[in-house]
Amino acid sequence: MTEPRFDTVSFLTDYGTSDEFVGVVKSVIRDLAPHVWVIDLTHEIVPFDIRAGSLALARCIGYVPSGVVLAVVDPGVATNRRAVAIEVAGGAGVVIGPDNGLLAPAVAMAGGAERAFELTNPEYQIEAAGATFAGRDIFAPAAAHVCNGVDLSELGPEVDPVLLLPGTVPLPREDGDALVTEVLWVDRFGNAQLNVGPDDLPVAWGSHLQVQVGAPTDPSGVTVRRAVRATSFAELSGGAVGLVLDSYGMLAVAMDQRSAAEELGLAAGDQVTIVSLDDPPAVATQVVLGRR
Amino acid sequence: MTEPRFDTVSFLTDYGTSDEFVGVVKSVIRDLAPHVWVIDLTHEIVPFDIRAGSLALARCIGYVPSGVVLAVVDPGVATNRRAVAIEVAGGAGVVIGPDNGLLAPAVAMAGGAERAFELTNPEYQIEAAGATFAGRDIFAPAAAHVCNGVDLSELGPEVDPVLLLPGTVPLPREDGDALVTEVLWVDRFGNAQLNVGPDDLPVAWGSHLQVQVGAPTDPSGVTVRRAVRATSFAELSGGAVGLVLDSYGMLAVAMDQRSAAEELGLAAGDQVTIVSLDDPPAVATQVVLGRR
Amino acid sequence: MTEPRFDTVSFLTDYGTSDEFVGVVKSVIRDLAPHVWVIDLTHEIVPFDIRAGSLALARCIGYVPSGVVLAVVDPGVATNRRAVAIEVAGGAGVVIGPDNGLLAPAVAMAGGAERAFELTNPEYQIEAAGATFAGRDIFAPAAAHVCNGVDLSELGPEVDPVLLLPGTVPLPREDGDALVTEVLWVDRFGNAQLNVGPDDLPVAWGSHLQVQVGAPTDPSGVTVRRAVRATSFAELSGGAVGLVLDSYGMLAVAMDQRSAAEELGLAAGDQVTIVSLDDPPAVATQVVLGRR
Repeated sequence: MTEPRFDTVSFLTDYGTSDEFVGVVKSVIRDLAPHVWVIDLTHEIVPFDIRAGSLALARCIGYVPSGVVLAVVDPGVATNRRAVAIEVAGGAGVVIGPDNGLLAPAVAMAGGAERAFELTNPEYQIEAAGATFAGRDIFAPAAAHVCNGVDLSELGPEVDPVLLLPGTVPLPREDGDALVTEVLWVDRFGNAQLNVGPDDLPVAWGSHLQVQVGAPTDPSGVTVRRAVRATSFAELSGGAVGLVLDSYGMLAVAMDQRSAAEELGLAAGDQVTIVSLDDPPAVATQVVLGRR
Repeated sequence: MTEPRFDTVSFLTDYGTSDEFVGVVKSVIRDLAPHVWVIDLTHEIVPFDIRAGSLALARCIGYVPSGVVLAVVDPGVATNRRAVAIEVAGGAGVVIGPDNGLLAPAVAMAGGAERAFELTNPEYQIEAAGATFAGRDIFAPAAAHVCNGVDLSELGPEVDPVLLLPGTVPLPREDGDALVTEVLWVDRFGNAQLNVGPDDLPVAWGSHLQVQVGAPTDPSGVTVRRAVRATSFAELSGGAVGLVLDSYGMLAVAMDQRSAAEELGLAAGDQVTIVSLDDPPAVATQVVLGRR
Repeated sequence: MTEPRFDTVSFLTDYGTSDEFVGVVKSVIRDLAPHVWVIDLTHEIVPFDIRAGSLALARCIGYVPSGVVLAVVDPGVATNRRAVAIEVAGGAGVVIGPDNGLLAPAVAMAGGAERAFELTNPEYQIEAAGATFAGRDIFAPAAAHVCNGVDLSELGPEVDPVLLLPGTVPLPREDGDALVTEVLWVDRFGNAQLNVGPDDLPVAWGSHLQVQVGAPTDPSGVTVRRAVRATSFAELSGGAVGLVLDSYGMLAVAMDQRSAAEELGLAAGDQVTIVSLDDPPAVATQVVLGRR
């Protein structure tokens, strides 16, 4: 009999909640480890969108309690992609999911993988009629057993952490006087988080900036707007666009009580170019070049 | 070391569940107060819709267990709107959220604010890179610490309850022979709850009524329908419209297994005028005046 | 004082999460039985869709922990349809909900109803202003009291299990060389589960099959596609359609990282006819007969 090791599983997937997938995974955990509480981070990652899932998980990782982090966005389910459990933070956390890049940014933010194991031991899995629901049959039992105190080494063979699939986070780049950035995430309120922190913008640029959405080579044209730097949405009155320091310490294209993403046509992955406005232009209207 | 005071947080927001906001708030509470269970009331309040949030919270307040009620619909986040904790019901409950009217109807239904405190003490907050996620950085820690037994007076300066922002609930009004009402809420099934209880309709009006949707001055026209009073949806056969006594003791415009809101074009805030039909009209079809 | 009997309620409804219905039911349970954990299976059953709810519940029942299963899809609320509690699996589970067919397939999969009782005793109900929210006023209190150890016989009169309303699950049928099947469920990823297990397809049919969507008599025409049998989605490269053995042991029409339901126009209840392809046709394109 092992001693319980963790009592919390933090859980993120692309399962949605219209089906019973999330509930069944929690049922399996409850059945195997009745003392464990599951916290839903989100289950609304766009189906198969590993990058979006990895970024959401990375945003959460600094706040989840000590315990297991269970993440499943798994287009390669039932193929030979590895299912893994990764120990981080001196054993304070174990990250479980498919080894497809989903876990990498969160693991990195937690200090990097210390030990990793492949989930192959059928004794810690649920036998199933079909192989397409690894969340229920492989990942949930692993999470429950780890919480129960089963050592990771019992779940399957050790994997050298350097062999784990890395994630990819795009870096901003300078282009002459401009900073070329990328939208990492559009939230429910329409704020578009960029891949730049406040220190990535030179102080000399001041607080009056211009954002350009879309690449000049994009035949659908570009949208150009003035944007001010702000620390609250309410500073952006009268339909102004802002670069707001968001709650994760990144800059987000935002408006006050309106969706900046909708207004500017922004989605995750889009390019946003930022330049300084030495002399604020006389007319601050929206300019659209080309056809949208 | 303080004694735990509460073990339940009832939680309502406009965060949605497509992002990780709700999960991160729960993670923070779990981390600070591991014995606490969080019950999600709903997180699908329309973004920034303080009135809808306040009405939903008021519908819940009679059913939530003793403990903390945490509610966040907060367009003024990071401005000088107050963040508050309000003690109600002889200390059986503490309502935490922004002081923008969101909490007022629920607090009133719980017997009124007994003590109130502003959440300003940084010792009971999480330091963050940006100021836009008060749910995570200010409200969740306050909820957890209150559950842990921290006295409200430690969270910040006391606020005179009479200075708290009131909510607004529209009252029905008589207009000649008619009662002019307002839609408070349209639920998932399309039932449109009005701001009238069963006693607001004179007994002499009987059970055959007429509802008129839209104001006569509205250029898009009005829709007029017969409506019968009913206590179950199933009484409304054959596409009949009813005024059903709903589960909160209010009258709702409803149909059987169909959306009355969709059929009559009803949304929260719309005006519905009720009159009695002494002589039920021979033809009970839908009449549309003007252009919709 | 009774001994607690169960500590888990598994909960499925058509309530959605945009309103506070689910949260209020959980609040009632928490208030009456503070030791109980509620696991949400799903609340996104299409409103009033008893069949979809019953199939989702049947998919879950093999995985839920010992305890109460609470299911509410209840178009007949506040009429004389019975509210019931059904004991199954030698007392390891009690299934609570309306007696309208919703519970039948899950109860059957759990070994059948052993005892059943009608929920009529007002002492174990919440008095309410209106009768339209049985989940809150009748079912939730029953679930909580059963968890607390109240015997089912105290909730109301016993009902002969043979009088409970049966569910209906469509059976596939042979039609000459073809197997005529029906879509039971389309999941978030667009996989369309059919009412056939792998053994329903003769081995002699091999792995090259043809699926025909829509009945020949349907004026909107039929869609015909080749389909291969597969055990993972990733085997279906290049836009191929597959009959994949899903995680519940049924065959599902599926594609790799695309929605087969969208591609083929499939919804729950649709007819899908399967035939063997002895000689794979030279051209494997989509053929549409008639007008869609």
